[in-house]
Amino acid sequence: MFVILTYDVGEKRVNKVRKKLKEYLIWTQNSVFEGEITEGKLKKCLYEVNKILNKQEDSLYIYEIKTSSHIKKKVIGIDKSFDDIFL
Amino acid sequence: MFVILTYDVGEKRVNKVRKKLKEYLIWTQNSVFEGEITEGKLKKCLYEVNKILNKQEDSLYIYEIKTSSHIKKKVIGIDKSFDDIFL
Repeated sequence: MFVILTYDVGEKRVNKVRKKLKEYLIWTQNSVFEGEITEGKLKKCLYEVNKILNKQEDSLYIYEIKTSSHIKKKVIGIDKSFDDIFL
Repeated sequence: MFVILTYDVGEKRVNKVRKKLKEYLIWTQNSVFEGEITEGKLKKCLYEVNKILNKQEDSLYIYEIKTSSHIKKKVIGIDKSFDDIFL
């Protein structure tokens, strides 16, 4: 399935969270990851990120779309994958 | 249709952008808006936000999903609509 994952995480934890998410998805905007992922891998990813988060302060939204044909993406301004630049 | 809109906008312009987006969608996470919107209204919204953005520095992603049944949202941590709090 296709996943859009957005996050709002405290400064102390944000680098750890990003590093973990990069193992599973593509970093496409400052607070956004995207990618094709299996249900099993997503479960593992969220289990691991869960351990880093402070659930009273942080927030993770995971939007699951069964097939990417159900979604259309438009971009205004900069369109980049942060992974291209920093990895 | 259902829209997820994520943004990464320079500090000088971010309040203006948020204010404009709030006229059309619901602010659900620091960098995320969501909502049901018609194609015509989305076009108007993007036209107006477009005038505020610096396209060399800012970035707006618009994910369009025809029906919200095609998408499933999970939340880890804080789940809130910023609109509830600040409007």
